[in-house]
Amino acid sequence: MVDAVIVGATGYAGIELTRLLHNHPQIKSLKLISQSNDGVPISSIYPNLRGYLDIECLPFDLQAVDKNAVAFVSLPHGASSDTVKKLIDRGLRVIDLSGDFRYKSHQVYEKWYKIKHPYPEMLASSVYGLPELYRKSIKNAVLLANPGCYTTCSILGLAPLISKKIISNKTIVIDAKSGASGAGRSLSLGMHFCEANETIKAYNVTTHRHTSEIEQELSFIAGEEINLSFTPHLLPINRGILCSIYAQLNENTSHEEVYKLYSEFYADEPFVRLHNEGSLPEVKFVAGSNTCHIGFAIDKRLNRIIVICALDNLIKGAGGQAIQNMNIMCGFSETDGLSSPGWYF
Amino acid sequence: MVDAVIVGATGYAGIELTRLLHNHPQIKSLKLISQSNDGVPISSIYPNLRGYLDIECLPFDLQAVDKNAVAFVSLPHGASSDTVKKLIDRGLRVIDLSGDFRYKSHQVYEKWYKIKHPYPEMLASSVYGLPELYRKSIKNAVLLANPGCYTTCSILGLAPLISKKIISNKTIVIDAKSGASGAGRSLSLGMHFCEANETIKAYNVTTHRHTSEIEQELSFIAGEEINLSFTPHLLPINRGILCSIYAQLNENTSHEEVYKLYSEFYADEPFVRLHNEGSLPEVKFVAGSNTCHIGFAIDKRLNRIIVICALDNLIKGAGGQAIQNMNIMCGFSETDGLSSPGWYF
Amino acid sequence: MVDAVIVGATGYAGIELTRLLHNHPQIKSLKLISQSNDGVPISSIYPNLRGYLDIECLPFDLQAVDKNAVAFVSLPHGASSDTVKKLIDRGLRVIDLSGDFRYKSHQVYEKWYKIKHPYPEMLASSVYGLPELYRKSIKNAVLLANPGCYTTCSILGLAPLISKKIISNKTIVIDAKSGASGAGRSLSLGMHFCEANETIKAYNVTTHRHTSEIEQELSFIAGEEINLSFTPHLLPINRGILCSIYAQLNENTSHEEVYKLYSEFYADEPFVRLHNEGSLPEVKFVAGSNTCHIGFAIDKRLNRIIVICALDNLIKGAGGQAIQNMNIMCGFSETDGLSSPGWYF
Amino acid sequence: MVDAVIVGATGYAGIELTRLLHNHPQIKSLKLISQSNDGVPISSIYPNLRGYLDIECLPFDLQAVDKNAVAFVSLPHGASSDTVKKLIDRGLRVIDLSGDFRYKSHQVYEKWYKIKHPYPEMLASSVYGLPELYRKSIKNAVLLANPGCYTTCSILGLAPLISKKIISNKTIVIDAKSGASGAGRSLSLGMHFCEANETIKAYNVTTHRHTSEIEQELSFIAGEEINLSFTPHLLPINRGILCSIYAQLNENTSHEEVYKLYSEFYADEPFVRLHNEGSLPEVKFVAGSNTCHIGFAIDKRLNRIIVICALDNLIKGAGGQAIQNMNIMCGFSETDGLSSPGWYF
Repeated sequence: MVDAVIVGATGYAGIELTRLLHNHPQIKSLKLISQSNDGVPISSIYPNLRGYLDIECLPFDLQAVDKNAVAFVSLPHGASSDTVKKLIDRGLRVIDLSGDFRYKSHQVYEKWYKIKHPYPEMLASSVYGLPELYRKSIKNAVLLANPGCYTTCSILGLAPLISKKIISNKTIVIDAKSGASGAGRSLSLGMHFCEANETIKAYNVTTHRHTSEIEQELSFIAGEEINLSFTPHLLPINRGILCSIYAQLNENTSHEEVYKLYSEFYADEPFVRLHNEGSLPEVKFVAGSNTCHIGFAIDKRLNRIIVICALDNLIKGAGGQAIQNMNIMCGFSETDGLSSPGWYF
Repeated sequence: MVDAVIVGATGYAGIELTRLLHNHPQIKSLKLISQSNDGVPISSIYPNLRGYLDIECLPFDLQAVDKNAVAFVSLPHGASSDTVKKLIDRGLRVIDLSGDFRYKSHQVYEKWYKIKHPYPEMLASSVYGLPELYRKSIKNAVLLANPGCYTTCSILGLAPLISKKIISNKTIVIDAKSGASGAGRSLSLGMHFCEANETIKAYNVTTHRHTSEIEQELSFIAGEEINLSFTPHLLPINRGILCSIYAQLNENTSHEEVYKLYSEFYADEPFVRLHNEGSLPEVKFVAGSNTCHIGFAIDKRLNRIIVICALDNLIKGAGGQAIQNMNIMCGFSETDGLSSPGWYF
Repeated sequence: MVDAVIVGATGYAGIELTRLLHNHPQIKSLKLISQSNDGVPISSIYPNLRGYLDIECLPFDLQAVDKNAVAFVSLPHGASSDTVKKLIDRGLRVIDLSGDFRYKSHQVYEKWYKIKHPYPEMLASSVYGLPELYRKSIKNAVLLANPGCYTTCSILGLAPLISKKIISNKTIVIDAKSGASGAGRSLSLGMHFCEANETIKAYNVTTHRHTSEIEQELSFIAGEEINLSFTPHLLPINRGILCSIYAQLNENTSHEEVYKLYSEFYADEPFVRLHNEGSLPEVKFVAGSNTCHIGFAIDKRLNRIIVICALDNLIKGAGGQAIQNMNIMCGFSETDGLSSPGWYF
Repeated sequence: MVDAVIVGATGYAGIELTRLLHNHPQIKSLKLISQSNDGVPISSIYPNLRGYLDIECLPFDLQAVDKNAVAFVSLPHGASSDTVKKLIDRGLRVIDLSGDFRYKSHQVYEKWYKIKHPYPEMLASSVYGLPELYRKSIKNAVLLANPGCYTTCSILGLAPLISKKIISNKTIVIDAKSGASGAGRSLSLGMHFCEANETIKAYNVTTHRHTSEIEQELSFIAGEEINLSFTPHLLPINRGILCSIYAQLNENTSHEEVYKLYSEFYADEPFVRLHNEGSLPEVKFVAGSNTCHIGFAIDKRLNRIIVICALDNLIKGAGGQAIQNMNIMCGFSETDGLSSPGWYF
């Protein structure tokens, strides 16, 4: 059992983490910190929690945080790093949901985020929290950088192919589609109901920050620098990401061979679901769960593979993965608190 | 601990029941019966269950059902009664999600459902499974008739007012709005995506069957026959019901007085959430949970009360309430398996 | 032919008016005024207009407005009255889409809008622009107050019943549901996509301003003061309003008799569509057109009528009705520029 | 002026064609043929047409069709060819909205559609109705094959690049997203509201028929065989297609240079809208209009171009383009009946 505190509990990622941690069997106590909602019951901000979790949000006073707790920091990038630093210095294990500590190179961070990294020396020891790749390091992490939502989906879809060197790394295209909760609770014209409903748009084409995060991790796997196209689109749905990934196959390869490769790579993974030939993931298969569904088709005419992956951007793409990481860090069962299947509708 | 079997597991109510029972701490084993999907893994019909619940659907052979199990019957009305009868005769406790055993008078059933009731003699002993009204009888129920979705929402909103005789029973109007899952998985033009999306319509105006069920229960509470307007509308959302209820107040009554009345009526109810003055329920507060949210406003100009209630039609309006009833029947904690708050988005 | 100018063209009502006027056969020239978008091409704000209407928005300089033009003022209430006054003084005919000049009593306006009316003396001469009731006065209007969206729908549904005194005026309940465009383009948490999607909520219960506007007009028809319940709900769709209206019938009346009454009341109305027994309006029948669909059912058990009406809140509920009024004021054919049927999907 | 007849008027493409033709200034008379709705007023099937177009559907009797009319055939592929043949033989000019006459090689048709072509000899004289490529041939067409929705969007996005040989034709990926109306009005589980709402899925991956149609046309432009990836996705919206297209640039090319190329290729095109650097199409810019919006970004890191194109699948992707073709065939102004901008929301 462990005490948990969430800094920045009232954003969309924070509140999903709150909802999930509330039902976690290993959580002794849960505290919520929110600068803007100090003293307000969380259930008056999110009335779905009424009668389940009616605790008040605490002020942003890091000195008051229990040193033995696990801290989840769910603040915007840039704002996150100071808080993470202070909590680490105070002795806590920290799971950071922002992009601030996901990079090994502060230059890459600075180039894509366009701000100077205040603590580049901390990047070496931060652990990238993708259990399917880094489970061993996560066990001993003190500073855990929880991956981005698009990133998790893209990496899980591509890692086996790159690891086994069966695709041409120069030909990768990731066409990603996300529900609106990925944009958070801050108001903007693009997220105004009538502007986002009954339409779809691409955004941040060629410049989305997750591109660099995907490239970093896939390059580590490949042992060479990978650059790729990543194009996010906004969908008129609340939750979920679907990535359609294209790459040229190096050789003529059958579905069966590639399926074997995926199933070996993800053997024993508790949250990866592979699809047999002829079946492909849909967002409704994953919404509400911590799973990532992966399927693919091979276009023999082109010798090209099309991988389709889906996950819930707020769960496997944020709060759920953070809990999976906490479970590993604390020696709990990896599926604790994450045993609910998706809700389909 | 108990064994559970669901007859008709692949409809929308059945699969929600499956999803919830799968995570129930008191369920020893769960069996799914589906005439049309005999031998098919449930997770290939609903891939959200993959890796969580991959059992195969069993054939429709009631003689093979374990006599000690609790049976949930989730079949269309008319089709349900025979199955219920056979399971009862076999010695099982049965929770029926159809309308077949909800009525005390078979004439009322026959008038509104337009079919002859094959077992009118069973109506006397069936228990109407609304825990907020019938908890004591539910404890010993052998045949439990699980209430309708609109019905639960409407009754919970009106029961305290009628019980305390503070409204004029001749003036009740229930304007109800439901998500599309209420119509089930059977195909129809009205449920075709482009026909149901970006619109709203009223349907079965003056003739919806739940009218008679609401009237039966409210009449029992009132000790006099109540007839009322009930108008259902179809919303372009997946889940949830919102009822807007109107009635004339008998006397000048304050919000505070009425609130006190509701809070006394629902004291200790684990799944009812009242809203303070100025706050009203929304569907997003209840979707994904077994709660019913209730709020109201008093229009002093008209001496009229407007009650707004919301619940998840598939949970408190179907599968969740069925589990709540099972919990009571089996002596489990009433919230077992129902401890998840709604998901807000 | 006439010149037209829209003051406040970039809000949702303004831009719909722009879209419709652009295709109007009797518009010689169209000018758009927008304080916040001076100099910006309207088609860069609303790119659907690109290649159709690429004119720049003009500054908010009322002295520059052509005296012979018809002016449409689409500003928030309160802000509208000054502009209307100045344009009238300048000699223009003005169609005001706000609530500022819709009331005959400035006290009623001040009570519901909670601001002091700056020009109460102008109320006497302003004409309420509901052609189905006031066509003759509209012909000579100089200051035309275009009705509200909920108001138009509610009045058209009730006028024949009240006019013919067949319902009890003390029993009226209007349960209204509106698409999100009714709330305009200003950002708010409630209109943030994830907050408004997959849910429904009631708002401004007992206090919505349109209540008073509906009551004013129905009271004029009745020759006595009418007070009624009006409850608006927000739907997760872009366009359209559905009103479900309940009232007690004074006498036992058949569907046929009531239908005759409606069809006489709306004989020759170009934009009212009545539904035969068994058929009722849906929002998808009206979206995109200037029509108001009306149908009803009679509940013989309760001697109550349920009227269902639908219209497009941005067309018959705003811009389209404003054009219909302009057509009448200018002696054009009443359907000019409004001849497109709705788009169904 | 011309008489028009639609065979198969009650499907989604047929009814959109009906809606648009009804307001076309050059249509003398409009007749609707529907085998399944003989004698039924079209406005009782699509009540949005009530009061606008209340004509009855005619029986499927091709001998009764006026020989001087232009016929639009909106039937499923396979079923269409016989009707087209008979109407041509009768002397009519025919615009066929199916895929039956879009191919120059009946083998390609037979491979992708998996049925034998009954009239391969007619393929030579049928004209592919994409005005931006074939305006001259369209003028004299007797049998016009109206292009597919995905096809139009994809070809318009790629034609200038291929024509000017600035991309590597072996690297093309088209990731397409479509609203649900593209699937028509026939019922299927995948189009059931709760199955299609709040999700996205890829379908017919590597096997969608439009792939072959896109390849045929782009190969003609290239003067060499082009094979490419085309992956359609189903969106939870009614209308619209967005294609995100990826290709490797042959040389380092600037946005300005490519923009020039597009603007020359589409100079004077009445329905193509190009976006400047930094701006990209969204579905809401095109829904309701006959336009195709095209924008692009160049990823200098990868020397890759990402083209984003959008159109309304029922208008520029079906009925609107058919009218544009009729306008050309009949010598009308090309924008007749197509002058409405999209409706944005």
